[in-house]
Amino acid sequence: MRISELSRATGVSIASIKYYVREGLLPAGESLGARQADYGDTHVTRLRLIRALVDVVGLPIAQVRRLFALIADPGDDMFAALGEAVGSLPPYGTDSETDAAAESRARATIERLDWTYDAGYAATAQLERSLAALEGTGVPMSDDRLEVYARAARMIAEFDIAHMPDENPSAAIEYSVLGTALYEPVLVALRRLAHLDIVAQALDDDE
Amino acid sequence: MRISELSRATGVSIASIKYYVREGLLPAGESLGARQADYGDTHVTRLRLIRALVDVVGLPIAQVRRLFALIADPGDDMFAALGEAVGSLPPYGTDSETDAAAESRARATIERLDWTYDAGYAATAQLERSLAALEGTGVPMSDDRLEVYARAARMIAEFDIAHMPDENPSAAIEYSVLGTALYEPVLVALRRLAHLDIVAQALDDDE
Repeated sequence: MRISELSRATGVSIASIKYYVREGLLPAGESLGARQADYGDTHVTRLRLIRALVDVVGLPIAQVRRLFALIADPGDDMFAALGEAVGSLPPYGTDSETDAAAESRARATIERLDWTYDAGYAATAQLERSLAALEGTGVPMSDDRLEVYARAARMIAEFDIAHMPDENPSAAIEYSVLGTALYEPVLVALRRLAHLDIVAQALDDDE
Repeated sequence: MRISELSRATGVSIASIKYYVREGLLPAGESLGARQADYGDTHVTRLRLIRALVDVVGLPIAQVRRLFALIADPGDDMFAALGEAVGSLPPYGTDSETDAAAESRARATIERLDWTYDAGYAATAQLERSLAALEGTGVPMSDDRLEVYARAARMIAEFDIAHMPDENPSAAIEYSVLGTALYEPVLVALRRLAHLDIVAQALDDDE
């Protein structure tokens, strides 16, 4: 298809498409002459992915480029590639927040769950910061709350991983990035909506 | 205690404490004379709450003030007060994103779950945006994924609500605000850590 058709199919302006090509995020179309190029379905898919990462997740262009490099060439260590890809997504912490006490908190928590502990994994630092914030507010995470949250998180993660495409590493990384970035807001919204429903029912029963 | 002791006990600078008093977020200490005031445990608790809302959640001061007004005087409609309090937390959407198609998506989803649908509730708009983003990326939320996510979210929400303090409405609102703002990052981190653990185990088994 022509660039104008690609633009209509994706809702992305021609100027933006050209910008993504210049920035190396989108492969150039197949040249049909000096002033025309042909685009295919892979361009449509890639453009949607770019827009999700830029508009929804809010990634800077340089970050998106690094992610695509990782998707194109995950290397031999799939585990490291997945960790790096997912770790490049927000929220980002600052070093100053990761103090030693918080780190031991996260470590103790993950070890209590008998999950893999990886100090360098971004979500470990994220857990550290969250636990520190809870403790700072005088409402530390209780063991029974942790148990319920972890069970729920595990249930979801089992489903996610069971549906991870396994035809090639690139597809798996793309799925992990999108799945992390786009399903988290769904989960958080569903938790709030479940609260609403439970409270609404309880108040109904009171009447 | 003196303001200097309050500062040491909470790690909040004296200048910040004075600022919060001026802004009406923290009650003034009991006057002990022209240049001294006495602070108590309620000040410690309130200061921790302010820091969590400002530093961790990232709320603007004006938003914190509105929240505290709601906690101080929830009014007769507990359901509305809870909704308003939790709805004042991020993420915030923009009106332009809430188009009619997205709204009907969220409505259909909530009705399929047989949960309370409230078009004006902030999390409804949040669900709408997330579902729209997924659809835009060509990976719409499947029914079986929704079922697993909703079951997990419900499990957590049941725990949360069961542990909501019921001695007075103000405590319930404070719990809801902190619980929404501070437990969400824990949940999101736990999901990512569960992914890590499941993938690590699968790769171990392969060897």
